[in-house]
Amino acid sequence: MTARARVDAITRLDADGTRTDPDLVAIEAPLELLILHPSLAEPRSLGLLMRTPGDDQDLVLGFLFTEGVIDNVGDVSRVAIDSDDDARDRPAQARVTLSPELSLTSRLPDRAVSGTSACGLCGRLAMRALDAGHARGPLPRIPAAAIHNLPTSLRAGQAVFAGTGGLHAAALCDLLGNAWLVREDVGRHNAVDKVVGAAMTAGRVPAPEALLAVSGRVAYEIVQKAAAAGVAAIVAVGAPSSLAIDAARAANLTLAGFARDGRFNVYAGAERIAF
Amino acid sequence: MTARARVDAITRLDADGTRTDPDLVAIEAPLELLILHPSLAEPRSLGLLMRTPGDDQDLVLGFLFTEGVIDNVGDVSRVAIDSDDDARDRPAQARVTLSPELSLTSRLPDRAVSGTSACGLCGRLAMRALDAGHARGPLPRIPAAAIHNLPTSLRAGQAVFAGTGGLHAAALCDLLGNAWLVREDVGRHNAVDKVVGAAMTAGRVPAPEALLAVSGRVAYEIVQKAAAAGVAAIVAVGAPSSLAIDAARAANLTLAGFARDGRFNVYAGAERIAF
Repeated sequence: MTARARVDAITRLDADGTRTDPDLVAIEAPLELLILHPSLAEPRSLGLLMRTPGDDQDLVLGFLFTEGVIDNVGDVSRVAIDSDDDARDRPAQARVTLSPELSLTSRLPDRAVSGTSACGLCGRLAMRALDAGHARGPLPRIPAAAIHNLPTSLRAGQAVFAGTGGLHAAALCDLLGNAWLVREDVGRHNAVDKVVGAAMTAGRVPAPEALLAVSGRVAYEIVQKAAAAGVAAIVAVGAPSSLAIDAARAANLTLAGFARDGRFNVYAGAERIAF
Repeated sequence: MTARARVDAITRLDADGTRTDPDLVAIEAPLELLILHPSLAEPRSLGLLMRTPGDDQDLVLGFLFTEGVIDNVGDVSRVAIDSDDDARDRPAQARVTLSPELSLTSRLPDRAVSGTSACGLCGRLAMRALDAGHARGPLPRIPAAAIHNLPTSLRAGQAVFAGTGGLHAAALCDLLGNAWLVREDVGRHNAVDKVVGAAMTAGRVPAPEALLAVSGRVAYEIVQKAAAAGVAAIVAVGAPSSLAIDAARAANLTLAGFARDGRFNVYAGAERIAF
């Protein structure tokens, strides 16, 4: 079992005074993403993903898919990921061998992307969001009750958050609001990539009947990833940014925010919610 | 005045039913960072910063400093930033002309960094954190009362958050816990870069008597930025990650988390807090 949290001795100060206590801390550790392919003379590094260890294969597959490097799991021949327990003088590596049949032309970013964002790729991803939106068939009606149910469903799946308070979570849920896949990470985009990667492996992407629930706020990149995965809606516990709203509208995605305490706000695609 | 939020028509659902209302949304928009220097044949793009408009010069200076591209404001000859109101078919740009006296060798990343992280630069920044920590003189004692005061002080300075709930904030505070500089952004690292850049312009970096308050969680990159700015401590409303704790200890920085509701936890440098 990969450790997602560790125990640290910390000093607590509260109304009862000061004391030293053990506390659970969410683990953040780098994973270098290396691409191998017959067209590359040597492995190409796509940069470091700063992630919480665990579900690394889901993370890598989801990341490569939502960044447009692969179209499906068939584009990957092999994934070899270092154990985090191994002693070494470099970051842990994920070595992904892409299928010889896949043409890498214009698929690999010409510069390394960093772990917590896809910003350098905005233009390309914006196009992907539009493409994904236009390619989808009729979109399902989403019961308002399902959206109300999502935060509870998401929280129930957050095994590590309960201990540390330090992890974001993402879940894929059905139209009743029940989570069928939950992943956690110190980075909210990583949590989304992990659920998308796991859903790909299960043959469930695109996921036109799925709702993506996220524990925090929604910025642009989360919408791009959701659009790539072809979900029906994003439901966030926190606030969306202006660009997240614009991207959701462009991609024909329903976007709800502040889903908590028996209320929510709808920023895009309200016409597909059955109130 | 640069708009940091906009009004959107949204659909609200709560115990009173469903209605359409105007709502304030935090703006997220790309800013491309271009470097000009005699040693470069043409402007070099360092990628897109996905940020909330406003305080863009602070953001750019703070980013270049905490990423190790510049050492002080004297390394910059000129900053020209597009107005967000201008019509154009490309992202807004910040064109930064670096001093001819500055040698760029090994200062510019050979790959573009993306806007919300410094992950590709972890190794280099880890060294910087250690360097910064070792170079500092005797560190001040930090009154526990100041840490208790920080969240309130930070919140008081969050002009846009109050309306949108969608922005992170960072503040530089004195040893009494009073904020003397507050900046907001959709990205927490951007908010930190903005306060650091503003403090540089005011001649207050390094800031060995300052406490850096942040509204959310603390991952590795925030500690690196704080170490570069030479502050005494980081005080976060949320949880730190394991790597943030390790980096704070390496850099000799006091790190407190969960600072709210009359309590806080100390993860590094507790010996410098006067309880």
